Amino acid sequence: MKKRIRFNYVEKHSPILDNPGLWKYPGSEAHRYSSLSYWTELAVKLEKACFDGLFLGDALGVYDTYGGSKDAAVREGLSLPIHDPTYLIPAIAAATKHLGLAVTCSLTYDHPYAMARRMSTLDHLTEGRLGWNIVTSNLESAARNFGLDTQIEHDTRYDRGDEFMEVCYKLWELSWEDGAVVQDADSGIFADPSKVKDIGHEGPFFRVPGIHLCDPSPQRTPVLFQAGSSKRGREFAARHAECNFLNAITPEETRHLISDIRSRAEKYGRKAEDILFFPRVVPVVGATEEEARDKLDRYFSFLSTEGTLALLSTWTGTDLFGYTADRLHAFVERKSGGNAYISDYLQRAHPGKQWTIAELARLYAFGGMGNVIVGSPEQVADRLESFIDETGADGFNIGYISRSESLTDFITLVLPILQQRGRAQTEYSEGTYREQLFDRGPYLPASHSGKKVKL
Amino acid sequence: MKKRIRFNYVEKHSPILDNPGLWKYPGSEAHRYSSLSYWTELAVKLEKACFDGLFLGDALGVYDTYGGSKDAAVREGLSLPIHDPTYLIPAIAAATKHLGLAVTCSLTYDHPYAMARRMSTLDHLTEGRLGWNIVTSNLESAARNFGLDTQIEHDTRYDRGDEFMEVCYKLWELSWEDGAVVQDADSGIFADPSKVKDIGHEGPFFRVPGIHLCDPSPQRTPVLFQAGSSKRGREFAARHAECNFLNAITPEETRHLISDIRSRAEKYGRKAEDILFFPRVVPVVGATEEEARDKLDRYFSFLSTEGTLALLSTWTGTDLFGYTADRLHAFVERKSGGNAYISDYLQRAHPGKQWTIAELARLYAFGGMGNVIVGSPEQVADRLESFIDETGADGFNIGYISRSESLTDFITLVLPILQQRGRAQTEYSEGTYREQLFDRGPYLPASHSGKKVKL
Repeated sequence: MKKRIRFNYVEKHSPILDNPGLWKYPGSEAHRYSSLSYWTELAVKLEKACFDGLFLGDALGVYDTYGGSKDAAVREGLSLPIHDPTYLIPAIAAATKHLGLAVTCSLTYDHPYAMARRMSTLDHLTEGRLGWNIVTSNLESAARNFGLDTQIEHDTRYDRGDEFMEVCYKLWELSWEDGAVVQDADSGIFADPSKVKDIGHEGPFFRVPGIHLCDPSPQRTPVLFQAGSSKRGREFAARHAECNFLNAITPEETRHLISDIRSRAEKYGRKAEDILFFPRVVPVVGATEEEARDKLDRYFSFLSTEGTLALLSTWTGTDLFGYTADRLHAFVERKSGGNAYISDYLQRAHPGKQWTIAELARLYAFGGMGNVIVGSPEQVADRLESFIDETGADGFNIGYISRSESLTDFITLVLPILQQRGRAQTEYSEGTYREQLFDRGPYLPASHSGKKVKL
Repeated sequence: MKKRIRFNYVEKHSPILDNPGLWKYPGSEAHRYSSLSYWTELAVKLEKACFDGLFLGDALGVYDTYGGSKDAAVREGLSLPIHDPTYLIPAIAAATKHLGLAVTCSLTYDHPYAMARRMSTLDHLTEGRLGWNIVTSNLESAARNFGLDTQIEHDTRYDRGDEFMEVCYKLWELSWEDGAVVQDADSGIFADPSKVKDIGHEGPFFRVPGIHLCDPSPQRTPVLFQAGSSKRGREFAARHAECNFLNAITPEETRHLISDIRSRAEKYGRKAEDILFFPRVVPVVGATEEEARDKLDRYFSFLSTEGTLALLSTWTGTDLFGYTADRLHAFVERKSGGNAYISDYLQRAHPGKQWTIAELARLYAFGGMGNVIVGSPEQVADRLESFIDETGADGFNIGYISRSESLTDFITLVLPILQQRGRAQTEYSEGTYREQLFDRGPYLPASHSGKKVKL
């Protein structure tokens, strides 16, 4: 039987999602990002379509690499304003029953005692539908606004992250034993003190002697997502991640990352199937291929070149301000070989053309670090299926170009085909987010690092 | 015209609210504390009754003073488990339209850059219904679990708190000017960079150079609550609080605190009416006085003596474990003169009685630092009115003994009388929490410290 393809939908508590200029697109709903109704309506729509989850990105700083200034980010609404995504979860949970809810939280400027409490609270309120996308932050401005001169060194951030997770595991998995909360009115015992343990953690980064403030939530540890692609980041993923969000451009790179992280995970006694991989894709679908290409052209007409360059500058850590077309072309080619699908499409459409900066920006636009897939419903469905089968991935994080239109297209045109082919679910199974993703119990498996910590 | 009495209802994201043992009371709903439906149903009930707000308490540590151990707190469900209350806000906001939502957050183990973002996010999602009860934490175990050897010294916590607030004010009030977010599709400008300012804050405790990550929320600064009663705490309140939550036992003490804080506030150029005072009361209402007293007796039969002593130990910072009845009696009398209403009631009921420890615990039980008011609907309404008129307070934080029953009694028996007398509102006015509480604009008044910060 062919593997079921899992789908998370990607959003950000911000006016746009890596689609600079598209807030101007008719019906984009950019202005609704801070309104609860946008989020509850979105969640209901995703649940009706049987998406596995909603994946909320985040950033704690400003995209200010381009020209060394925040101005482009402000002007473009580029990941700014960016509100705390964790507060969307409770309202969405109240409006839905099954949808998984994965939220990005950086651990670098936080403390595990507070973070563990937040996550347990949310896992309780969602009745076990919480996922945490663990990030370590990579924006200079975040470090400065949290009072540092510059960022903590990259690998040290991950060392601290390992210990941060160790503290969380102790609080989530060990502090309150099963059966600690008895609520026995006859004996007058709410919880049994002999089953509630001080964790006594002492390490180079943290000292947490006491008990967890929350009783065990339905999953104890939320489903752990991670997206690091550096060597140290992959090592972190191999140890902690249950779901991995990939930004690789090509199937080859995707396959390589998956196999690398899976083999690193074996060192920790984990199995290949213990980690699910979700490459990011951005489908552009029309009734026919022609229509899809027209749609992409229409999207391009709203694209902001400056916004795209500002996005690329922050992603690559290279200030592209003032680049000539030639220099930019060389940079994009060198950095990644371009976005194969968009590049191919543009070059076929305009063979031998001399690219302008605005046109070059399109080579990277929308897909960003993931793939834009353009085509008829069948073409997109075929491409998604073959991408899974070629790479060993387990599902997709679905991004969008037009906030409402792209998702509606995907739900009405592509998902029914994948459902008919038996590759996408048509109803939810029971249980927590972890149970739905892995078809096993609500807790971390015994092979996971979080189950191996000791007091 | 007599002053309108404002009502907030007090809750905690925990099995009980300072009413040890009452989780056993039939219909107490103690087990529902981690369930969203409990909170949305409660909020709908409060809104139907035209309460001004829901006030959510919090603690970041364990009540472990009694016997130097967490055991009593665990056994009694005494402020433990205690989940993050901020995550109740979005779901409640989605279920209601008018109810104000005041939440307790400690600033002592947090950073203003993260806190300001959380508050702005919530003020956006609630469409301007957020209040923040600022606390500095006073539990040793919180300090230790956040990695400190012991608590930051009391007055230093407040000094740090003053600067913490200054950073928040700069982010909320000054970073994004009015009109910064233009969303003008013609010019392609989402927000105007010339109106988004770095705050450039440098102080002894914090350095925050950049811009706020959130655009201005409906109130910019949430309605600020505070409850400190120490001299330094009152100074903090005089500078920052718009609403003050009082735990004083007697009308005399309440009046004294109100007049002290109001005169301190004048130093900062504020007016007496710039701060609203909410003493905490716990009404026990029956159809007749007799019924109310029977109800209180029934509540007492569920009261846990150990839980009450554990609560008292943490509140007073004195370990009462092993106290004899005489020693405890002397302690309670010395500490506060006892709870006048309960004490009076018990002594009238049992003149000349030798008190046991269990009986003494009742002198403090339920009311805790506030007042238990026992009587017929008219008696309770009279008492609330006269308390306001005697003390200069502006409303009440209403606590409960039985989670569902107490509130239902108050709503069905007492509020209608106060509404008929024109002292309690029968419908909401339009606007934000601040507009509803103060009958003026959505923002801090010009006289408030938060409006006087400069970049």
